[in-house]
Amino acid sequence: MRYFKSDNTAAVSPEILEAIAGANSGAAVPYGTDQWSERLNHVFGEFFGREVRVFAVSSGTAANSLALATLCPPWGTVLTHAEAHIERDECGAPEFFTGGAKLSLVSGAGARIAAADFAARLDWFEPHVHGVQPRVLSITQATERGALYTPAEIAALAKIARDRGMRVHMDGARFANALVAQDVSPADLTWKSGVDVLSFGVIKNGGMNAEAVVFFDPALVADFEFRRKRAGQLFCKGRYASVQLLAYLETGLWRRNAQRSNKLAARIADTGRQWLSEPFATNQVFMKLGQERIEALARQGFAFYPWGPAGSGECRFVCSWDTPDEDVDALCAALKAVS
Amino acid sequence: MRYFKSDNTAAVSPEILEAIAGANSGAAVPYGTDQWSERLNHVFGEFFGREVRVFAVSSGTAANSLALATLCPPWGTVLTHAEAHIERDECGAPEFFTGGAKLSLVSGAGARIAAADFAARLDWFEPHVHGVQPRVLSITQATERGALYTPAEIAALAKIARDRGMRVHMDGARFANALVAQDVSPADLTWKSGVDVLSFGVIKNGGMNAEAVVFFDPALVADFEFRRKRAGQLFCKGRYASVQLLAYLETGLWRRNAQRSNKLAARIADTGRQWLSEPFATNQVFMKLGQERIEALARQGFAFYPWGPAGSGECRFVCSWDTPDEDVDALCAALKAVS
Amino acid sequence: MRYFKSDNTAAVSPEILEAIAGANSGAAVPYGTDQWSERLNHVFGEFFGREVRVFAVSSGTAANSLALATLCPPWGTVLTHAEAHIERDECGAPEFFTGGAKLSLVSGAGARIAAADFAARLDWFEPHVHGVQPRVLSITQATERGALYTPAEIAALAKIARDRGMRVHMDGARFANALVAQDVSPADLTWKSGVDVLSFGVIKNGGMNAEAVVFFDPALVADFEFRRKRAGQLFCKGRYASVQLLAYLETGLWRRNAQRSNKLAARIADTGRQWLSEPFATNQVFMKLGQERIEALARQGFAFYPWGPAGSGECRFVCSWDTPDEDVDALCAALKAVS
Amino acid sequence: MRYFKSDNTAAVSPEILEAIAGANSGAAVPYGTDQWSERLNHVFGEFFGREVRVFAVSSGTAANSLALATLCPPWGTVLTHAEAHIERDECGAPEFFTGGAKLSLVSGAGARIAAADFAARLDWFEPHVHGVQPRVLSITQATERGALYTPAEIAALAKIARDRGMRVHMDGARFANALVAQDVSPADLTWKSGVDVLSFGVIKNGGMNAEAVVFFDPALVADFEFRRKRAGQLFCKGRYASVQLLAYLETGLWRRNAQRSNKLAARIADTGRQWLSEPFATNQVFMKLGQERIEALARQGFAFYPWGPAGSGECRFVCSWDTPDEDVDALCAALKAVS
Repeated sequence: MRYFKSDNTAAVSPEILEAIAGANSGAAVPYGTDQWSERLNHVFGEFFGREVRVFAVSSGTAANSLALATLCPPWGTVLTHAEAHIERDECGAPEFFTGGAKLSLVSGAGARIAAADFAARLDWFEPHVHGVQPRVLSITQATERGALYTPAEIAALAKIARDRGMRVHMDGARFANALVAQDVSPADLTWKSGVDVLSFGVIKNGGMNAEAVVFFDPALVADFEFRRKRAGQLFCKGRYASVQLLAYLETGLWRRNAQRSNKLAARIADTGRQWLSEPFATNQVFMKLGQERIEALARQGFAFYPWGPAGSGECRFVCSWDTPDEDVDALCAALKAVS
Repeated sequence: MRYFKSDNTAAVSPEILEAIAGANSGAAVPYGTDQWSERLNHVFGEFFGREVRVFAVSSGTAANSLALATLCPPWGTVLTHAEAHIERDECGAPEFFTGGAKLSLVSGAGARIAAADFAARLDWFEPHVHGVQPRVLSITQATERGALYTPAEIAALAKIARDRGMRVHMDGARFANALVAQDVSPADLTWKSGVDVLSFGVIKNGGMNAEAVVFFDPALVADFEFRRKRAGQLFCKGRYASVQLLAYLETGLWRRNAQRSNKLAARIADTGRQWLSEPFATNQVFMKLGQERIEALARQGFAFYPWGPAGSGECRFVCSWDTPDEDVDALCAALKAVS
Repeated sequence: MRYFKSDNTAAVSPEILEAIAGANSGAAVPYGTDQWSERLNHVFGEFFGREVRVFAVSSGTAANSLALATLCPPWGTVLTHAEAHIERDECGAPEFFTGGAKLSLVSGAGARIAAADFAARLDWFEPHVHGVQPRVLSITQATERGALYTPAEIAALAKIARDRGMRVHMDGARFANALVAQDVSPADLTWKSGVDVLSFGVIKNGGMNAEAVVFFDPALVADFEFRRKRAGQLFCKGRYASVQLLAYLETGLWRRNAQRSNKLAARIADTGRQWLSEPFATNQVFMKLGQERIEALARQGFAFYPWGPAGSGECRFVCSWDTPDEDVDALCAALKAVS
Repeated sequence: MRYFKSDNTAAVSPEILEAIAGANSGAAVPYGTDQWSERLNHVFGEFFGREVRVFAVSSGTAANSLALATLCPPWGTVLTHAEAHIERDECGAPEFFTGGAKLSLVSGAGARIAAADFAARLDWFEPHVHGVQPRVLSITQATERGALYTPAEIAALAKIARDRGMRVHMDGARFANALVAQDVSPADLTWKSGVDVLSFGVIKNGGMNAEAVVFFDPALVADFEFRRKRAGQLFCKGRYASVQLLAYLETGLWRRNAQRSNKLAARIADTGRQWLSEPFATNQVFMKLGQERIEALARQGFAFYPWGPAGSGECRFVCSWDTPDEDVDALCAALKAVS
């Protein structure tokens, strides 16, 4: 089987395992007060070029939901794209963590939110007690359809949000892939453009079971730590989560892994460019191959997801940091053969 | 520093790291459908001598809360000891996961619930809509004061619970320590005595970041899997949690580690037996040393918690699987010196 | 000021006040066990032609939310129209009462859900733990744009819902208006067409502060009564709510009031038929008068709501049971004058 | 049957019905923006001698829970007496409204919290994320055992609360009875002693279905109005709730009714003084009559509740504003007969 289903089927990068082994001797104070956890703020602060507050959690769902619950009251609403992970793939986790806040959906090509559509959706909300109040904008970088937001686009959205007293959350499950795909700094793509809180994905890009929630404004941390504990996301042996996050940044793993998976995906996108159903940008490739070609590839042992509504003929190929070169070779050959 | 604060300051057993490394090659289907996760039910079933359903989560708090949320409706109440971890140390996680169910407290020596006290507490509840309804009994094995429940004691409690239509949850954060301390089988200590769901602790006894929730009745699983996903506790790279649980049982790690920590603690208990404030049973030792001796030990570099209300003169020493022999030697010597 | 803003600005019908006064002597057992409350099931059962279970609550929001919370688990979703009251006008009450379930929206003219659109929306949901599960369809009768569902249309929707294991809730804030507008029985418009639970509106049609939640299947009542108490909606002096519901049916008030408000609205709709932006059916009239005419009418002392997005030129006129004839005369005259 | 079960079995005072009838003409803007609702703040402000913010809700449970949810975050805890209504009689409503906050219980004679016991209970809580944080003290005036807090006693409790950053809530279901029983002002018994929010009971003392939530500090109102709407407690025909509250204060009803019920109860307490199991203070009388006498009175047609654990021989008699004089005569005679 040659896997192109998702980057979440990948193994863990050796750098991560080494970091874990390196932390594995003797006693360490628990619950995030160990020497590794205490370095998180500093290391991430260097990465982002400003003081930040960083917290480890065990899944992207937890990262997103805890961030949103901290920013959005129960009677608030989070504006997000109709295809966002928080809307489609988390079984209502944001609603659970927030105590019943709402997600209000915006449509748009590429699973991206355009500033005009965001502004138009906001017009539905009136400042009275009968309706939920827009409090957070959540965007995904890269999006569920592999698209990117540029710093300028983020800034435009953040401006609208700010004018309504809203905060901006970025679901960065594939943040590293988005970052290496653009010639910008981590700061440009986040706080300099108006992002308040980032779910900084590590797992899909070589990590094991730790993601980072990054607050760019310490004041916004508010009661996050109580909420994290209460959600079962404060780990007694916290060092094993923290060292994953440290190794991810300090060894440059984030960049190496993202560059490799993006490059592999680029080969697929290039080979099948006549079928691209979304502009290619990161490590995800969307193609309208048609049902027949999809089935032919599946028969040849390629594992990947159909996409969109049933019968759409669209599919998605994702490359991971550890996707074998020969699997990409084979897929490119197969694509040429069916064309 | 010589650490006797808690078993949660320990490192991870090599068997666990080896299991993780052993699973770390190539792609694996995500979200608990990998080959390791699929073996969980079988391996735990063998251990407990009956068909079970097992789920990995990332913390004991998550294990307890998800189990309770599955068993207890929002308008229900969980009877538990006033010193239980779910009441004192989880920042209201059970209330959060259940959607606002209540914990109703029972007192009792050794942080244990006596059958008569449980029955008496139940008398407060009337079967009408004005009050919450008792739905779950949650007991801790071993308790927060190191005490054990025998199978007969569990059965007596479970009988009372069953007669009221309640279910029985066991917080087994230190289940292995409790098991090796009694000459009984895993089955005797759980389902044969009436336990419906067990939070089976791994982390404190050598694990890294995976605990098991074990359902002894498949029907009780109910909507647990939706709740787990929704809580951010379904891991995309699920194999790394599952192999920890498998290695814990299959390599006999649970027994080796628990036996060692219990044995080390026994030396301390024996040395300080004139001060024991709780009968000694597992890997926790409670002593009423008095303020002066406590301070003397602290000055000598022993790290441990004072216990009970301020000024009680009581303290707790906990041994881990990796507590150095020489640390125990030193503590025993120091105890002799202050006596 | 001549009021056409909403039927919720109306006064209370004398029949209701008389019923309250008639119940106001001597002690009555509290919390819905009084003689009046005990008659609710019987009287509503007669009205609907089958055994029902009826509960009084103090607002339409409470009626809807408690019904939905009883039918939908926290990890479920309620499919409803994007303009539904539960989505737009209840500040997230369904999310609050359900413990964070989701509303999933369906579009459609007239704020009505077409069977094909409902079926298409259901295709988004897959039977796995990553997404919320569709558990309830909630339709509004009459809709927020004054449209009706016929029994056949309800049956078609209910069939689709039933095939997915879903339940059907009807928000009947204006149920009486919908009923008198169609030549069908209460049974036809509810349980015979597949409705499981009805929020039976009384307040907008002459009541004071009691609405009825009607379960057509006693098994679905489930834990409704615990949820109601827990929501502060079980009234100690329950008789004063129950007598409102009894009087509403037993004096024929539901019919008289609905017929009158529908008839008054029909005059307005007829007068302004060239501007109707929705087919007229009950006591609500939607017109695209244009900004200029809207302002002219406002200047003349007519109070009514603009409708739709800002600048749409649409507005809504609602008649109540107590809208003065002369107010309708005046409005019709004014409409003629601006045409 | 002669009713002494509770003041919630009473009828509604004529003054309340008259006020409702008086408001019942013509249209009124809905949702608490009508002319009556707008006078609430002023009238209650006069009563309490300072600027207040007042909101009507439909039950005491809703009043308490909405007040607590506004003051206490989900990870907080409300300290209250173990016999408090919010703990024993509201089916977990505070936990529901707060999103899973905890109630932490304090014992004490007369269902009263003594300052020393409150302070001792606070010692259990540590300022870290592992435990819930004490945020609110909730006391009941008069208590569930008919006892009173004096202004000095309230001030002592409030001082302790304030020093811990906590707020003070008073459940005043029988506030008027407590007030007329002490020679103090409404201000003395509330904000001057440190009460932040009062659930001001009207229903048990002659009202129909409206209670008042009174905030003495406008800043504490915070998001109360969103929470109220979201809980289905914002009434479209709000005038019918508001006029009850206005009539209660403006006609002096609160005083007349409370004085009468207190006086009737005093006769019972005086007659049975040898059996009093609680010091008598308001309209509740607690007696240890013994099982035999209790049964004798029951056989004679007196309806009242046994109190305390089964077989305690204790019972409670409550007088309402409309308890007939002859019922009290009869009870006093019967008490003499059984002595």
